[in-house]
Amino acid sequence: MKLEVRNYDLDTSEPTVLLHEDDCHTMAVSEGDRVRIAGESAAIAIVSISDTLVRKGTALIPPSVQKASGASVGSFAEVTLSHTPESVRHIRAKMDGGCLSAESIAQLVDDVVAGRLSRIETSAWLTALYIKGMDTDEIAAYAKAMAETGERISFPGRQVFDFHSFGGLPGNKVTPIVVSIVAAAGLAIPKLSSRAISSACGTADFVETFCRTDLDSEEVRRITDEVGGVFSWTGATDLGPAGDRFITVQRPLGIDPRPQLLASIMSKKVAVGATDLVMDIPMGTESKVPTLEEARSYARDLMDLGDRLGIRVECIITYAEQPLGEAVGPVLEARECMEVLECLPGHEDVADKACICAGTILGMGGICDGTEKAREILESGIAHDKFLEIVAAQGGKPDVSSKNMVPGRFSKDVLSDRPGFVRRLSNKAVVAVAKAAGAPADRGAGVVLGKKLGMKVSKGDVLMTIYAERKDKLAHAVETARDMRPVEVEGMVISRVCQK
Amino acid sequence: MKLEVRNYDLDTSEPTVLLHEDDCHTMAVSEGDRVRIAGESAAIAIVSISDTLVRKGTALIPPSVQKASGASVGSFAEVTLSHTPESVRHIRAKMDGGCLSAESIAQLVDDVVAGRLSRIETSAWLTALYIKGMDTDEIAAYAKAMAETGERISFPGRQVFDFHSFGGLPGNKVTPIVVSIVAAAGLAIPKLSSRAISSACGTADFVETFCRTDLDSEEVRRITDEVGGVFSWTGATDLGPAGDRFITVQRPLGIDPRPQLLASIMSKKVAVGATDLVMDIPMGTESKVPTLEEARSYARDLMDLGDRLGIRVECIITYAEQPLGEAVGPVLEARECMEVLECLPGHEDVADKACICAGTILGMGGICDGTEKAREILESGIAHDKFLEIVAAQGGKPDVSSKNMVPGRFSKDVLSDRPGFVRRLSNKAVVAVAKAAGAPADRGAGVVLGKKLGMKVSKGDVLMTIYAERKDKLAHAVETARDMRPVEVEGMVISRVCQK
Repeated sequence: MKLEVRNYDLDTSEPTVLLHEDDCHTMAVSEGDRVRIAGESAAIAIVSISDTLVRKGTALIPPSVQKASGASVGSFAEVTLSHTPESVRHIRAKMDGGCLSAESIAQLVDDVVAGRLSRIETSAWLTALYIKGMDTDEIAAYAKAMAETGERISFPGRQVFDFHSFGGLPGNKVTPIVVSIVAAAGLAIPKLSSRAISSACGTADFVETFCRTDLDSEEVRRITDEVGGVFSWTGATDLGPAGDRFITVQRPLGIDPRPQLLASIMSKKVAVGATDLVMDIPMGTESKVPTLEEARSYARDLMDLGDRLGIRVECIITYAEQPLGEAVGPVLEARECMEVLECLPGHEDVADKACICAGTILGMGGICDGTEKAREILESGIAHDKFLEIVAAQGGKPDVSSKNMVPGRFSKDVLSDRPGFVRRLSNKAVVAVAKAAGAPADRGAGVVLGKKLGMKVSKGDVLMTIYAERKDKLAHAVETARDMRPVEVEGMVISRVCQK
Repeated sequence: MKLEVRNYDLDTSEPTVLLHEDDCHTMAVSEGDRVRIAGESAAIAIVSISDTLVRKGTALIPPSVQKASGASVGSFAEVTLSHTPESVRHIRAKMDGGCLSAESIAQLVDDVVAGRLSRIETSAWLTALYIKGMDTDEIAAYAKAMAETGERISFPGRQVFDFHSFGGLPGNKVTPIVVSIVAAAGLAIPKLSSRAISSACGTADFVETFCRTDLDSEEVRRITDEVGGVFSWTGATDLGPAGDRFITVQRPLGIDPRPQLLASIMSKKVAVGATDLVMDIPMGTESKVPTLEEARSYARDLMDLGDRLGIRVECIITYAEQPLGEAVGPVLEARECMEVLECLPGHEDVADKACICAGTILGMGGICDGTEKAREILESGIAHDKFLEIVAAQGGKPDVSSKNMVPGRFSKDVLSDRPGFVRRLSNKAVVAVAKAAGAPADRGAGVVLGKKLGMKVSKGDVLMTIYAERKDKLAHAVETARDMRPVEVEGMVISRVCQK
């Protein structure tokens, strides 16, 4: 039926339209149904029903749907019950354990990006993927389809390097160091990172404390051409936007279905034009990949996927039983990252990991003794120069230094109540404390570890310092630390066995 | 943080709250997160974010959540990021193929009913159930938990009979006939039915054309005590409300996970206090249960479930290759149902099925030769008297007759373009035509079949008559009939095999 379009100023992750109960009754439309809204063009939206918020004979339509349907406020649009998209059949086929064709997968991805699938359906899809999985051909088709939904960058005739860490390792601040070393060696590395999803700080979260991370695709291409690399935020580019669409549904479920994870990673690499990729797979009891067997299986899958997508992939399985370096939280990680680039003492584990990752890339680029070369570039200060050059290209201060990185003004030391050794350092607990302190939204919030695994501790030693921008959050974080005990100290004697 | 409560006049199936972007940033809350809203009491809601619809420092809260949280408009409520409910872990356990304890299942059902699970999570749960299933103990626990979420009826010391049809059979109008026969025989049968979900007409849809179906639990109990039975609508009673909560999520997915189906049915029977249940399982190519094997397997499951829930269950597998009787659609089905009760000629299949179902119940109630007895009660007019008595008790006209049931004023005959025999009569296509005509929302809309399976047809014979309340819907239904050809007529020769 023809309904007058009025503005509905609520843009949620799924396109909605608010209709009057009586009109819905006439159209035999129920809450959650899909309708087609035809103005100058046409779009699909999911129905919410109210008998008070909306007047009979009108449709409240959010701006994104007004645009897609060409139905402007004040005009009349034809609203009709719409068929369920074909993809819902593909979702059911996956539930039944079927293997999907590349065409079906492409159609599903299209429907997700166009907002034709509701969150209910997307959730069913992710759950089915989690339970039933996908074979490598399906994942490759999935990655390709996701890449094709957005922009693509290309660097004709050039080898293009990329680097990706699987995540799950707090304090993993190596990306700007790796990019700086690789770019300094003359190779192209347009590196895009994500923000924190469930962690305390993603790469984009700490990089944006000292330069822009909202480069669009054209800027990524241009700066990579001019200075060799970028460290920017995926979200600003519209490269492989499909992956992001799934995140809002995945997050509340707390699942990361393997095919989704792999396809989502690889789609970004395809979209950015990468020809060579180094994958860092952090392995640790509390990380995404707890065992060597699983790490190897991911590595095999990624290499197989690379084959099908025309990307050479090498994988590095790395140690992730405790945070990398000492700092967790945006400003704190930025500071530590710069300290490594400035060749200040400390954080050897960060420097070491960065050099190995960068070195592997150099090796793929035909440079002998890659890791040695990477270390040379880092220690000579050439990497630091390149870092400042990229920061400047990304709109940051060209002379930014670790000294400029000032954490939140409220802080509290957590002291050890006993002597002993650090026996356990929980990644999850450290993240929980940093988040309680306000990270990543409060940039100055986070944690600096005073002691790491195996280190000797005296009573009263600082185990960690918590920083926050607000007093109440500091108190909350201290309480979290008290509850979760991220750093456990024990003596050498675990228990005594006595005769009765 | 403290936010001023303002009214958000949109009540969707999941409790929502609309917050300002900046406030969300401060609280580190994202779209789709759960927050706790504490006024005089506290409730959980799912966050939507806007930076225009809602003013900073305020929270738009729908009336249902205002009520649950005790946060009235104009007051200040404490809004805080809320933990993910425990049930999300149970959902993941089911995804991983785990078997859930009765406690876990009860917790999940509680969270669903209280609106603590989002549609995304509910969808994941249903998908996991669809793929991974449940064993009989889990289903029994699920049914019990659902029954316990709402009201319960009891008839102390009495045998209480119930009757349930699995659905998927258009025109299945036997319920008021069965209830009338059983009540006339002196047994108690508080029968509650549902409305159409995807069909053209549920039992409640056609019964409400001649009497109230919105009896509350107390009325159901009282009328059953007084006249022996009711035929009312489940939805009005708050018996086992959990089942209904799942429907809004299930419907768009087009799935009906077996454990969900079984638990949902049995929960209503537990809640209504049934001690003896007859299950009608319509079997047909296009029904929910296409093969005898599946029908038997459902029957076994239902009887096992009954054992665990203290309900004696008998199952009848019935023929469902074509609609029952001739009429599909609210007023049309009501008319046909009454014609059978009034002992008018025709609709022998309807009468036969009703007598068998009622007869099985009589048998369980200790009455010998149940089916014969049922037929006697029907043919003697005693069932009709009881029917009118129940109709009156449910607020209908005490002298209602099939003649009062007048279908929509627009109608069109669909004629056969050839002579032959009815070779196929598609339930799905008949339903599609009736829905296109406006059923069940337009009560006078629907279809009356002129010919049924196997019948001889001359060119020009009426295959079906379509009724509608609106001219445009009639046209739409005629078009649907033309496309889908619900009644297929062919000669006796299917194909000729000739020598070359």
